[in-house]
Amino acid sequence: MTDFTWSELDERAVKMAKVLSADAVERAGHGHPGSPVSLAPIAYTLYQRYIKHDPNDPHWDGRDRFILSGGHASLTQYVQLYFSGYGLTLDDLKYFRGGADTRTPGHPEYGLTPGIEMTTGPLGQGLASAVGFAYGQRFERGLLDPDAPEGASPFDHKVWVICGEGDVEEGVSSEASSLAGNQKLGNLTVIFDANHIQIEGDTKLTFSEDILKRYEAYGWYTDEVSFIQPDGSYKEDVQALAAALDKAEKVTDRPKFIKVDTLIAWPTPGKTNNEASHGSKLGAEAVAGLKKILGFDPEVDFPIDEEALAHARKVAERGLEAHKEWDEKFAQWRKANPDKAALYDRLKAGDLPEGFDKAIDDVESGFESGSKVATRKASGVVLNAIAAVMPELWGGSADLGGSNNTNIKGAKSFGPSADATRTWPETSEYGRQLHFGVREFAMGAITNGIILGSDTRPFNGTFFQFSDYERPAVRLAALMQIPNLYVWTHDSVALGEDGPTHQPIEHLTAFRAVPQLEVVRPADEYETAEAYRAFFEKKNTLPTAMILTRQGVPALAETAEKAREGVRKGAYVLVDAEGTPDVIIIATGSEVQWAVEAARTLSADGVKARVVSMPSMEWFEEQDAEYKEEVLPRSVKARVSVEAGLAMPWYKYIGDYGKAVSIEQYGLQGDGAQNMIDLGITAEHVVEAAKASIEDAKAA
Amino acid sequence: MTDFTWSELDERAVKMAKVLSADAVERAGHGHPGSPVSLAPIAYTLYQRYIKHDPNDPHWDGRDRFILSGGHASLTQYVQLYFSGYGLTLDDLKYFRGGADTRTPGHPEYGLTPGIEMTTGPLGQGLASAVGFAYGQRFERGLLDPDAPEGASPFDHKVWVICGEGDVEEGVSSEASSLAGNQKLGNLTVIFDANHIQIEGDTKLTFSEDILKRYEAYGWYTDEVSFIQPDGSYKEDVQALAAALDKAEKVTDRPKFIKVDTLIAWPTPGKTNNEASHGSKLGAEAVAGLKKILGFDPEVDFPIDEEALAHARKVAERGLEAHKEWDEKFAQWRKANPDKAALYDRLKAGDLPEGFDKAIDDVESGFESGSKVATRKASGVVLNAIAAVMPELWGGSADLGGSNNTNIKGAKSFGPSADATRTWPETSEYGRQLHFGVREFAMGAITNGIILGSDTRPFNGTFFQFSDYERPAVRLAALMQIPNLYVWTHDSVALGEDGPTHQPIEHLTAFRAVPQLEVVRPADEYETAEAYRAFFEKKNTLPTAMILTRQGVPALAETAEKAREGVRKGAYVLVDAEGTPDVIIIATGSEVQWAVEAARTLSADGVKARVVSMPSMEWFEEQDAEYKEEVLPRSVKARVSVEAGLAMPWYKYIGDYGKAVSIEQYGLQGDGAQNMIDLGITAEHVVEAAKASIEDAKAA
Repeated sequence: MTDFTWSELDERAVKMAKVLSADAVERAGHGHPGSPVSLAPIAYTLYQRYIKHDPNDPHWDGRDRFILSGGHASLTQYVQLYFSGYGLTLDDLKYFRGGADTRTPGHPEYGLTPGIEMTTGPLGQGLASAVGFAYGQRFERGLLDPDAPEGASPFDHKVWVICGEGDVEEGVSSEASSLAGNQKLGNLTVIFDANHIQIEGDTKLTFSEDILKRYEAYGWYTDEVSFIQPDGSYKEDVQALAAALDKAEKVTDRPKFIKVDTLIAWPTPGKTNNEASHGSKLGAEAVAGLKKILGFDPEVDFPIDEEALAHARKVAERGLEAHKEWDEKFAQWRKANPDKAALYDRLKAGDLPEGFDKAIDDVESGFESGSKVATRKASGVVLNAIAAVMPELWGGSADLGGSNNTNIKGAKSFGPSADATRTWPETSEYGRQLHFGVREFAMGAITNGIILGSDTRPFNGTFFQFSDYERPAVRLAALMQIPNLYVWTHDSVALGEDGPTHQPIEHLTAFRAVPQLEVVRPADEYETAEAYRAFFEKKNTLPTAMILTRQGVPALAETAEKAREGVRKGAYVLVDAEGTPDVIIIATGSEVQWAVEAARTLSADGVKARVVSMPSMEWFEEQDAEYKEEVLPRSVKARVSVEAGLAMPWYKYIGDYGKAVSIEQYGLQGDGAQNMIDLGITAEHVVEAAKASIEDAKAA
Repeated sequence: MTDFTWSELDERAVKMAKVLSADAVERAGHGHPGSPVSLAPIAYTLYQRYIKHDPNDPHWDGRDRFILSGGHASLTQYVQLYFSGYGLTLDDLKYFRGGADTRTPGHPEYGLTPGIEMTTGPLGQGLASAVGFAYGQRFERGLLDPDAPEGASPFDHKVWVICGEGDVEEGVSSEASSLAGNQKLGNLTVIFDANHIQIEGDTKLTFSEDILKRYEAYGWYTDEVSFIQPDGSYKEDVQALAAALDKAEKVTDRPKFIKVDTLIAWPTPGKTNNEASHGSKLGAEAVAGLKKILGFDPEVDFPIDEEALAHARKVAERGLEAHKEWDEKFAQWRKANPDKAALYDRLKAGDLPEGFDKAIDDVESGFESGSKVATRKASGVVLNAIAAVMPELWGGSADLGGSNNTNIKGAKSFGPSADATRTWPETSEYGRQLHFGVREFAMGAITNGIILGSDTRPFNGTFFQFSDYERPAVRLAALMQIPNLYVWTHDSVALGEDGPTHQPIEHLTAFRAVPQLEVVRPADEYETAEAYRAFFEKKNTLPTAMILTRQGVPALAETAEKAREGVRKGAYVLVDAEGTPDVIIIATGSEVQWAVEAARTLSADGVKARVVSMPSMEWFEEQDAEYKEEVLPRSVKARVSVEAGLAMPWYKYIGDYGKAVSIEQYGLQGDGAQNMIDLGITAEHVVEAAKASIEDAKAA
């Protein structure tokens, strides 16, 4: 905006924001007051003048998105939400970091507080996911309104971020920022609060880099505004900030990084530019001093300057107007684009497209029992079939697309429209094939942002081993309960000669441990197809990891018959004995074949073995007690688990007399099939374990 | 070096390196030939002229360290090790990616192959750990020879890295490179192989940043050498490379980053500058073509140009000479510095200092049963006591030093000697207080490098939650079996109002799952002190994580008495009933107090309860069967586990009739003590669970 006016009422509102932030932490007794105090003029300027939003409709599609990457400074945002009229009350501010029922928790939580676009706190991820928000906006525009001139579409909106030093120190922000520059994301503006203080001292202690130069190197537009004046005085120069923002708004071919030099907690006496104000309450004396300096009565807590508040609240009127304008634009678009409007409605409803089931059925009809196909390959075939009917599906890999089978055939790559220097593959600004380079963590964070910021459905892949790099973003997806989809291939020592650095051992356990994450390890191509069907059919589903083999595994006659009903239940009886089984063998993924073979051998020896395929413990746990008892009757004490990973998650299912056929050490250099044998994952071992378990159970 | 001569024999050796690399992958049938072929002249130049090494003594203290960050290009290094005479044979090259007994595995493995300084493969970590090698060199010099002029000490050596695009894409390299610049690590030189190919296409697809500018922004010296000539032709211009390296060697106040523009697999016909050469064998035709171009008989596999090999082997003579010179320097130093020589000998032997036990005993004598002290605080006190007698101990945090209690009192911070712009804290180039900024992953990788590159002992801390960010480096430490020490505090929902983003739930499970990692969660200050004693007393110990509370926990009379014997065994009987117990309650960390309280309540109800404190499952598993049976007699079926985390790791110990008092969901906003109650971690629940377990066991 170019007509930036700043009245005395604005000034007073900013002062009130500072004091309310200080008071909120003071009342809680803990929290992070410093940044909210010094960020107040910046956040106020954004919320009042730059961010397009309608406080009366926090879910308005046309809104700009704002992400506070340094979530510990949550009051920065809470106060502006209160000022803007999101329904957040003064009582909410008074209940900052209160009990489990607070709407103003220590760190912003997605789904809890109106106006909060994502959960932040783990540093770097807010900025990285904001890049994903910007990806999502562009791709969704491409789906719904690709030909509109820039800025003319109802699907044009901007993404705003405030981040701090900790955010840009974290590697994930480096990864994502490099991609943002590469993608020329002109809809993304980052305000970097350089307050020169980290918990352990002067930021120069660990952060002496030239951050603007670094962002220029990534291909960003950069600018700097200093509130620290050349003469050493401090002035919250919102005019200079506005001038920089106006200049940046004209740049539409690059993401924008604006450094603002601040002094933390300014002008709190004794606590300004002092790390003590970062993560502890300022103390009664300092707060009183701050109030005095800012013209408030030191004796009054949570003082409200009603006039300034009323002034700030006017942003809601402006928001309503913008929303109305948008509604018209949207109505016009809807009228002119009935097909796309139908797509829009389906995306909003979260419905599957017509033809979804058929697409999977068709794929399955091409499978052949007995043929040996890696589940990663089956996954690629299924994803492609789904992609053919589901334009909102897009995704890619951290530079392992061919290996992960995450390539969408014939799709263009997501990339800036004009890039003459790039030789291949072919790109389009609306392309649906994503490429992340070797940046797993950013991949996880960006796909989180895509889900949060659009109604499109991304997937992302890497080797299962390198899910470790991505893990913090996976946790955040699970905490937010957003349906990210991980395609993690090369899932065991059977990947072979890349050796122990690449062979997952503990990963199944470590991800099953993550609450609200669903881990699915299909046995063959049938189970793979049904795993995807179940994932997409679930509404409000949780983030889900598909764990897939590098090596070929036989398509089983039993899964062909039973996977459709069984996979979605997490576990099902794949092979049964007549009458009560002597032993139950539970297996997942590539080990199901050994369980089936073992059951055959046992049967020949007169032992009645049931084989349970358990692609997903989480899905199984969601079933009712009756079904669980049906699959794993308590009366059968002899049990064996078979999985090319740790036994840890299996003790729960195999009980006191059970035996786990597992791997409890790092993998081996060498041929994959040989590794499996050397580490004891064989049908013979399953047979032995079954017999031993039957003996033990009898002896008891 | 300034007298760079390059003979026809050097040229022939490089050609042979290319052909051997191609043949090795061809014979294996898989692997990464492209980079080893195009990197051959660079690696040869380094190994022959720049890296100071003695192939006859790969462990020579005075050697430079070389790290191949892109471990997939392992042949780059194997061929040079073979050329240099490290004992690696042609048969080893022929057995590349062979069986479990190969010395030339897919990715270099620490401890397996002479001349390999660390395990690489997970991208970015080689470069990041190399920064740690450089840290370690400087700190160790400070311990042993602080006053020697630059370059004059036997403890002056250099660190060399070859890395690729994937390495600098990974965020961990950004974090570590920023720190390397901040620390002005003049002993570190990185050769960046820009081959413009990533698996999914032209690197510009995801990597269009100006990498030299980025490294300049970090404060590095940069230079570029292009093998791609202005006219488009390709020339492996080792003279230009040497000129750049010579120029860089004169720069001693900054780390150095030299970009070399190459074409992958050059000059392999059809596979040069082609991503197909990255991760698959070149194919018989291409290899034959390569041999022809380079003057070898296409029919001969693994051709040896004996004259060129003999020429290359001369590097061992030069190495021997350098070693001899160093021996003299070292002898002089030893003579002049008897005290430091004694320290050197102790470090080499891996012995503890005199006074180690007393230091811990003294701390313990200051503990008071019943007083409530957070284990993180106890940890800080113990670490400080150990630091007072153990000058090789250094460490720090990812900007949470005060919270993690990882500050060494009175210690100077590790930082470049002259930094007038930094205001606080006080730094010294040999300071022992580390600061990582908010960069957990780099912290893990750098401390790995410190351990690998020196005989000093680092520790590093963050909130337990953010161990997720560090996890890939922890795994690599475990795989390499190096004794990194993690101080992870704020270990449960009891941390309170920072909320679910900061509250670990799954982390104990996820780290217990990592093979060769030891996880220790002490109950109180006594157990904390004994945990450190046990860790340091173990020779060749594994990486170990201390999991510590934010909140105060009572120092127990029982641990005061039994922790010294018990903690090192991983689990021990803390409170016992007379005769055979009715139930065994197993607890860790802050929950031990509730187990003890529950036992008291049960006793009052006539139930005989045994309490087992189990600070470390891994240490317990290392005990003999007799001890395990003594602590957890199989005959006692009624069991309860109590831990403010998942039940998953406990099923193994509690069995069919056991009950887990656990947390199976994300944490809560709110007061920490209240969170524990709300999530059911109370003595009352333990009592209930114990009674229920006794009932179940009886009913069976």
